[in-house]
Amino acid sequence: MNILVINCGSSSLKYQLINMTNEEVLAQGIVERIGIDGSILTQKVEGRDKYIIETPMESHKIAVKLVLDALVDNKNGVINSMDEIAAVGHRIVHGGERYAKSVLVDDEVVKYIEECIKLAPLHNPAHIIGINACKELMPNTKMAVVFDTAFHQTMPEHAYLYALPYELYKEHNIRKYGFHGTSHKYVSAKVAEVMGKDIKDLKIVTCHLGNGASITAVKDGISVETSMGFTPLEGVAMGTRSGNIDPAIVTYLMKEANYSLDEVNEILNKKSGVLGISGVSSDFRDIEAAASNGNHRAQLALDIFHYRVKQHVASYAASMGGVDVVVFTAGVGENSPETREEVCKGLEFMGINIDPAKNKVRGKLTEISSDSSKVKIYIVPTNEELMIAKDTLALISK
Amino acid sequence: MNILVINCGSSSLKYQLINMTNEEVLAQGIVERIGIDGSILTQKVEGRDKYIIETPMESHKIAVKLVLDALVDNKNGVINSMDEIAAVGHRIVHGGERYAKSVLVDDEVVKYIEECIKLAPLHNPAHIIGINACKELMPNTKMAVVFDTAFHQTMPEHAYLYALPYELYKEHNIRKYGFHGTSHKYVSAKVAEVMGKDIKDLKIVTCHLGNGASITAVKDGISVETSMGFTPLEGVAMGTRSGNIDPAIVTYLMKEANYSLDEVNEILNKKSGVLGISGVSSDFRDIEAAASNGNHRAQLALDIFHYRVKQHVASYAASMGGVDVVVFTAGVGENSPETREEVCKGLEFMGINIDPAKNKVRGKLTEISSDSSKVKIYIVPTNEELMIAKDTLALISK
Repeated sequence: MNILVINCGSSSLKYQLINMTNEEVLAQGIVERIGIDGSILTQKVEGRDKYIIETPMESHKIAVKLVLDALVDNKNGVINSMDEIAAVGHRIVHGGERYAKSVLVDDEVVKYIEECIKLAPLHNPAHIIGINACKELMPNTKMAVVFDTAFHQTMPEHAYLYALPYELYKEHNIRKYGFHGTSHKYVSAKVAEVMGKDIKDLKIVTCHLGNGASITAVKDGISVETSMGFTPLEGVAMGTRSGNIDPAIVTYLMKEANYSLDEVNEILNKKSGVLGISGVSSDFRDIEAAASNGNHRAQLALDIFHYRVKQHVASYAASMGGVDVVVFTAGVGENSPETREEVCKGLEFMGINIDPAKNKVRGKLTEISSDSSKVKIYIVPTNEELMIAKDTLALISK
Repeated sequence: MNILVINCGSSSLKYQLINMTNEEVLAQGIVERIGIDGSILTQKVEGRDKYIIETPMESHKIAVKLVLDALVDNKNGVINSMDEIAAVGHRIVHGGERYAKSVLVDDEVVKYIEECIKLAPLHNPAHIIGINACKELMPNTKMAVVFDTAFHQTMPEHAYLYALPYELYKEHNIRKYGFHGTSHKYVSAKVAEVMGKDIKDLKIVTCHLGNGASITAVKDGISVETSMGFTPLEGVAMGTRSGNIDPAIVTYLMKEANYSLDEVNEILNKKSGVLGISGVSSDFRDIEAAASNGNHRAQLALDIFHYRVKQHVASYAASMGGVDVVVFTAGVGENSPETREEVCKGLEFMGINIDPAKNKVRGKLTEISSDSSKVKIYIVPTNEELMIAKDTLALISK
């Protein structure tokens, strides 16, 4: 039983075909520059050379068609026909307040994703295009949608509401939604499993640290607090995003420094974060290299990033009345021993003690807390695609 | 030796005359509606009726003149002549990056306060008017300025810098400044004194909770982190201020909800906070009353306020690698047992245990932690005027 997982962006499409019997990834790939010159599909299959198709792709429909062709290709494919795809699972960034769970696609669901476009103007339109393209090409294949926001719909009112006029919530849907939900759900469930505990008995802080970064408090198995908010801009400093700032800075930049609204949005989303501080790169590997060569602003960018994550870990422990486990995941969380060590440093007073020797590991599910640490610390590689496939499988099996 | 403390707003002027020999407040008063119809001066002297003067006051100079007259008034005054005022201490909201301490007033100081007007457009112009009025009326009296921002100038770079392009800091001075510094400095010094400890041996979280609210981490006697930022808008929810929100909400309100820049500023500063959530009032006493009558949104406003303060306390403990004392001060912090109890609830995992019986007190310097609490909890009534007077005395005594 194979599930095709699709993550459709405005000019890109990532996919994985997963065999759900053994959770093996049969093929994974990415289509880039859809609708732009130089469209390219790259498919990887374990143990084989990359399969690359360079051909004009005017639309997402053409891109999906090429993906399906690549999967069933005589020489480079991994299945014999499209009938071997039991269902498609789509990653959707914004599910608004309606969807706290993954659902099968129907007209009503698509309509609501459309309604959420103003909450996720860059992502939701692309998702709808992807869903429609699949519908046309595989009219008989069931499809599910898995929302980045869904896991956080369990947050209590005092966590998801801003201290803004209540009318802005009622009339304009302004509240904290949270993102990366699929990842936070996956790693929190995984760490409970590995510890041999019922997730309902654990207080978990999950740190999804990549180019986008968010921290979540998981208590009784549900999200009770998360650092991304109305949009994925809020929270800790990220690769290019500012995270929390004094909101008055936004109006100050427009009023006193003469930036336009769009320029301010561009600054906060694309030119800030560790890129903005360091002036070096948005890639943490570049910044770590520059810092170790004595670049002060690169070191400062790392210090700020680590410091803000540390503050969030403590703050989210407070949200839960304590913490039993801290989980690091995603690109930086899985691969930077320095980040994990710096985040944990100074949290010993809360019973968080990292073992520097165990921490010398990259990308592997590992416990890295010292033997005496009251709070367990884990690296748990995230797997959003598998989570999407699992949700999809569960929905079509009902 | 008497010091006159002046806090000059755009249309108001608060003052206290303090006898520094015994720290007794000889007289205190407020002038309201300066430059507006209905100007009024109200002076209070312990054990006497209020002394009220209603007369047109076109300028701050006239207001200062009336204050001086009231202080030396034959019947209602407290001193015989202006010669009994040894010096004047002015409260100044914004001292930018230059002033980490109080200083005596000279032309250069006034010029720099002027330069900081764009950082505090509502406050600094009024302060300058107040300084100039005093200079004209008491040309031979020494004056000092005490900055709200000064105490926080010790914050490390990774705490005061935002994750924004570094150029915005260099070119536009955009960084965290912090406010309420005089209060945080006063209560942290006071609590160390009361505990019989050297402040350098303590990690203190000070919660200044009033209509404006800010939390500060004081380590080794200096501020290392604070919740107000570039302006007094950042941080926890307040009476009418939003505190932290997703910065993308600011641009969303302008782009999608058609608010103007000034309207958004007005919403965030004047219509948000517990007023915005509750729809009841910005006064915590009104909200507590409404909540106890079953008003859901009033309860929600309190929940959000308490929750955010709690998160900050934990987060600032992380900033210091632990916490020895939590201090509550200012209107709400000193007078709301409910707020103190709710903030501490859930922080037991950090060794913070409040004693509900000891906590049943208002406005008195009291230890309110349980006997077994690892972290001490105190109510310390703030006294910014005394702090300003002390700084002024120290400067003129040099």
